Amino acid sequence: MFFGKAAVIGVGLIGGSFGLALKAAGLCGRVIGAGRSAANLELAVARGAIDAFEAGAAAAVRDADLVLVASPVAQFERIFLEIGPALKSDALVMDAGSTKRNVVAAARKGLGDRIARFVPAHPIAGAENSGAGAASAELFRDRRLVLTPLDENSKEDVDTIASLWTALGARVSRMTPEEHDGVFAAVSHLPHLLAYALVGDIAARADAAQLFGFAAGGFRDFTRIASSHPEMWRDICMANGDRLLRELSLYEKKLKEVGDMLQKKDAAALEKLFTDARAARERWLNGEYQ
Amino acid sequence: MFFGKAAVIGVGLIGGSFGLALKAAGLCGRVIGAGRSAANLELAVARGAIDAFEAGAAAAVRDADLVLVASPVAQFERIFLEIGPALKSDALVMDAGSTKRNVVAAARKGLGDRIARFVPAHPIAGAENSGAGAASAELFRDRRLVLTPLDENSKEDVDTIASLWTALGARVSRMTPEEHDGVFAAVSHLPHLLAYALVGDIAARADAAQLFGFAAGGFRDFTRIASSHPEMWRDICMANGDRLLRELSLYEKKLKEVGDMLQKKDAAALEKLFTDARAARERWLNGEYQ
Repeated sequence: MFFGKAAVIGVGLIGGSFGLALKAAGLCGRVIGAGRSAANLELAVARGAIDAFEAGAAAAVRDADLVLVASPVAQFERIFLEIGPALKSDALVMDAGSTKRNVVAAARKGLGDRIARFVPAHPIAGAENSGAGAASAELFRDRRLVLTPLDENSKEDVDTIASLWTALGARVSRMTPEEHDGVFAAVSHLPHLLAYALVGDIAARADAAQLFGFAAGGFRDFTRIASSHPEMWRDICMANGDRLLRELSLYEKKLKEVGDMLQKKDAAALEKLFTDARAARERWLNGEYQ
Repeated sequence: MFFGKAAVIGVGLIGGSFGLALKAAGLCGRVIGAGRSAANLELAVARGAIDAFEAGAAAAVRDADLVLVASPVAQFERIFLEIGPALKSDALVMDAGSTKRNVVAAARKGLGDRIARFVPAHPIAGAENSGAGAASAELFRDRRLVLTPLDENSKEDVDTIASLWTALGARVSRMTPEEHDGVFAAVSHLPHLLAYALVGDIAARADAAQLFGFAAGGFRDFTRIASSHPEMWRDICMANGDRLLRELSLYEKKLKEVGDMLQKKDAAALEKLFTDARAARERWLNGEYQ
């Protein structure tokens, strides 16, 4: 497995880390980037995440053997439309989007009959830091990566992409785009929304300065994901709105139950909730759900 | 400032750390503990957090110059009733409770005319680890500590307690018990409740194993406080139920707004929420609210 030329569209935390990891693993010749911010692309070159960059996505993918699209997901349709006609006939294409149903729809629209060689991928390696400056060759090590293969994909292409991510240290799983979007609405998209909502709520109050002034380590960790990239998360919320609304409504129902426990001063029910949650989290931390 | 004998009732993370810090600072002779778990008290002796322990709180406080009550807050009324008659006439008493209105009420009931020498205190130094095994002499270093002095307290006693915590590394502030309970309902108690509710909700689902299996670093940090001590948090929720219900209802209102943004596919409103929240959190991390 070796790719003479790889193209990365969107050289942020994920795209930049992919370039660094691919080179560190000796799996490619040159890596060419494209993206919206020249300053970020220059930083990516300086850090060795890409060797050079082009002004547009179409120019970057020309002659590329492997293409990774790693932009905020609302950009995907435009990017696929742009790169579709410029792709080499045997180029393998994948993405790193946090949502999958909309990415697949955008790829079908933009790539046309090239769709068979597009393998949707989601490396679970987000962080609150963004941009090429935060990239690391080790970002994918021991992280999960979800492939949501299409009916059109050949077994060989899916296996190649799986081997590639495995070589970068990731633990590869497969599911359908629908299943993917449901799972990540629950364990990733909703928590981000909840953290943003809490910080936003407190920041808007007249006594925000006093409240933040006494917030401590628990608050810091709880709200870490509220420092995530706003545009990226806006796009995820738009792309996965139906599943996210479903999760939000389940959570609101749960909060109503908790409110009832408080209202009724039901200490036993609260303690049971806390005990069960702690035990489940311990099982999770102990790797019982891997 | 030197206390010949200090008594710590409840030698967990906070009580044990207080013993270690007091000794490290050379501010006391002996530290005597009391608590509900003999195994934990033996561990506290082995770790040097206390020099010895007594079977009951009354025996522990006999002849003590300084008493710290650091149990889950539902225990306070019983403990104050027990130690009230056993206290030396000039003993200074403080607590480490996470709620203040109920602690003050329990102290008025249990300590009777000794109330003047009880100075309510809350070190903001919780962690998801509990027990004497998690104690550290450095726990209070650079952490905030809130005193909620009573009308009956002398200026001298309040200043002594403030100096004591300052000597252990804490940054001491003062507010009323009412103000305290409002502030911490917003920035501590509600986030704990939200984290417990999310983990509890996911753990109860048929596909919990798959969901936890794909939960990553964001989820881990968001839910860290759901590994907190269930009894302690049950007591906090019971003691501060009215303020917590108020915060919960404000948060539910905020989630309704966010749900409306999703429903209406209002990308601009979501991006503004995310951008404002991230900016507020950055200001907080940069120390602008200290």
